[in-house]
Amino acid sequence: MNEYAGILTKLRQKSPLVHCITNFVTVNDCANILLASGASPAMTQDLREVDEAVEYAGALVCNLGTIEHVDSMIAAGKRANELGIPVVLDPVADCLTELRRKETVRLLQEVHFAAIRGNASEILFLTGKNTQGNGVDVSASDRVDEDNYPEILTRLSDLSEKLGSVIALSGKIDLICSSKKQAVLRNGCATMERVTGCGCMLTSLIGAYCAVHKEDFFAATLAAMASMGIAGERAEERRLANQVGNATFRNYLIDEVYTMTEEIFERGIRCEIYSG
Amino acid sequence: MNEYAGILTKLRQKSPLVHCITNFVTVNDCANILLASGASPAMTQDLREVDEAVEYAGALVCNLGTIEHVDSMIAAGKRANELGIPVVLDPVADCLTELRRKETVRLLQEVHFAAIRGNASEILFLTGKNTQGNGVDVSASDRVDEDNYPEILTRLSDLSEKLGSVIALSGKIDLICSSKKQAVLRNGCATMERVTGCGCMLTSLIGAYCAVHKEDFFAATLAAMASMGIAGERAEERRLANQVGNATFRNYLIDEVYTMTEEIFERGIRCEIYSG
Amino acid sequence: MNEYAGILTKLRQKSPLVHCITNFVTVNDCANILLASGASPAMTQDLREVDEAVEYAGALVCNLGTIEHVDSMIAAGKRANELGIPVVLDPVADCLTELRRKETVRLLQEVHFAAIRGNASEILFLTGKNTQGNGVDVSASDRVDEDNYPEILTRLSDLSEKLGSVIALSGKIDLICSSKKQAVLRNGCATMERVTGCGCMLTSLIGAYCAVHKEDFFAATLAAMASMGIAGERAEERRLANQVGNATFRNYLIDEVYTMTEEIFERGIRCEIYSG
Repeated sequence: MNEYAGILTKLRQKSPLVHCITNFVTVNDCANILLASGASPAMTQDLREVDEAVEYAGALVCNLGTIEHVDSMIAAGKRANELGIPVVLDPVADCLTELRRKETVRLLQEVHFAAIRGNASEILFLTGKNTQGNGVDVSASDRVDEDNYPEILTRLSDLSEKLGSVIALSGKIDLICSSKKQAVLRNGCATMERVTGCGCMLTSLIGAYCAVHKEDFFAATLAAMASMGIAGERAEERRLANQVGNATFRNYLIDEVYTMTEEIFERGIRCEIYSG
Repeated sequence: MNEYAGILTKLRQKSPLVHCITNFVTVNDCANILLASGASPAMTQDLREVDEAVEYAGALVCNLGTIEHVDSMIAAGKRANELGIPVVLDPVADCLTELRRKETVRLLQEVHFAAIRGNASEILFLTGKNTQGNGVDVSASDRVDEDNYPEILTRLSDLSEKLGSVIALSGKIDLICSSKKQAVLRNGCATMERVTGCGCMLTSLIGAYCAVHKEDFFAATLAAMASMGIAGERAEERRLANQVGNATFRNYLIDEVYTMTEEIFERGIRCEIYSG
Repeated sequence: MNEYAGILTKLRQKSPLVHCITNFVTVNDCANILLASGASPAMTQDLREVDEAVEYAGALVCNLGTIEHVDSMIAAGKRANELGIPVVLDPVADCLTELRRKETVRLLQEVHFAAIRGNASEILFLTGKNTQGNGVDVSASDRVDEDNYPEILTRLSDLSEKLGSVIALSGKIDLICSSKKQAVLRNGCATMERVTGCGCMLTSLIGAYCAVHKEDFFAATLAAMASMGIAGERAEERRLANQVGNATFRNYLIDEVYTMTEEIFERGIRCEIYSG
């Protein structure tokens, strides 16, 4: 597992600027978790400057949480594509409304993404499944479990092949697919679903990891997701010990990303990887 | 008091989606306190989709903090009214500027609200009083105290009758009025005034409670306000014990909503209810 | 040093409203640190009302973090100038893009600022230096250190003279200049660079201090910067004692502003002042 833990250290050494065009609900947490990981955040979303600002970035993260800024995402994303800067997508609530479904298609046509991460409903929608998520929560029929995950891995691999992107589905079990490799990750804790922005924060981290590990976005995405999951488990121990709730948990979660070491990472990761 | 405590449990069982069109200052706290209460937050404000998105919600919360989104509030509010989804209003700084005074009137003409919650200046403005709040703080002449609250209750009952909405005024003493019932609530603590968004968070909670208790918005509003006040008192004990300030208090406040039980609620509520 | 510590007390007594037109990334922290200091925050940015809303304020703070609201800053700033309300500028990432460079010039032409605070790259850009910051981090060639700070003080004094504004550069060493006085401040800690919005929060505090000490914006700016730096040092002690990271540190930082006393301030400030 050394391969993945090493990306943590690379991230702290290189301290890339991660440009996020993201929603106003969780933007502050995304900025602080990027700083915790060793990266620097930049959050401009103004269409008049995003294509120029992104030139300074090591990665671009596009988050559909608030849907107003798709034009900025496309302008910055096209420029990032030209410059070889990895672009990561969080298709928040992509299946919720006619507007979101259209804008998601438009974004995927205009920009190439190194990685795409969402919850089960969001990702299954991209595979063409007729999902029924309400845009925030995963619908029961979309949940990934021990029985259905092999079938879902196949769906995600096909999507990865089609889009040329690493596909990451996060939930109780995390799935990560490139066209050639597949990973099943079993880190994290249930309290993460009770904090707004855990998904957004995770996607920001994937951006940071991709910025410093362009040779393998599958490995970068896996390392980012594992570090988030491990941080979540450790934050949960602290939450229970101190008898607090989801707000203090949120701070612990970011703190644990800040204090994480390669040793903690290697000891904590619970992952199976398949090839071919 | 069992009637009110029971709504807490119903909220956790039903876990309604609460759609907030709210300000960018406190939106993250509103999302996290909703999650703490057992609800799920949705925060889209895009005029192109709000009327469609609101269909998935158990309640809609409109917060005037940033005044830009009144058109979205009206579009979503009208659709919610059609579908029988309760709509709750937080008329932040309604009396501050010509723009706000006009937009508040427009909103009240177009949308029917199940409940309206504000501070004394904001609510008294709706009753036609010529208030002098600066939009954030309550002016001295508007403060509710032990002497003037009976007279203010009458004003609020009249407003409730006129608008067909539960009217809630929060401050050192909280007042809640329907056209038939009146409540005086004495929970909370002074530190809540030193945290941005305590009012916004409270209104979001009222939305969550109304979502699961449509048969009685007066009871739902009262239960939400009591749970917030009790959480505030418990957070203040923790703050003093740990010698911290308003930032850590904010987290404790949300934590206490997360860890609240029916027992804590019943033991903590300090409320008088009048009928007729 | 009593002169500076006394402004803390004045701030708590007068509790001025500080109107911030600021970015969506750190707006919540700015509001809470203002409340911690004794001030009240107001955050409207709507062009249709800002010139009216600012009339209630003791100070106006303009933050370029998100660049969309320069028209609102000019409208509110001009009105504040007419009314003698001090206006403070945080020229976030002013040197990053063509848009930012233009908008910064426009703002400086239209509005008079009582004080301007930025990092080294942002402030040196205003002095005409060809800086190379990426908009978030200070470029290596711009860093202030023990060797180059006297030369930089001269540059800042010239800028102060030209603009009629107190100029404050924050970093490992803080520099504050009026046309007549210069201060070197050595408070703070490195963890402050790992929390988003420490600069924005500091500029908000400068607004609060200027609101209650209009007779001397140099002293007000110095007192605000010292209180922030001292709070940072104390928060860092707490962070290390509790083995937490940047997220909990952020809360401690605001908490320390909340619990600061004149005694703590006087004992903590490390400052040299030069005249002429």
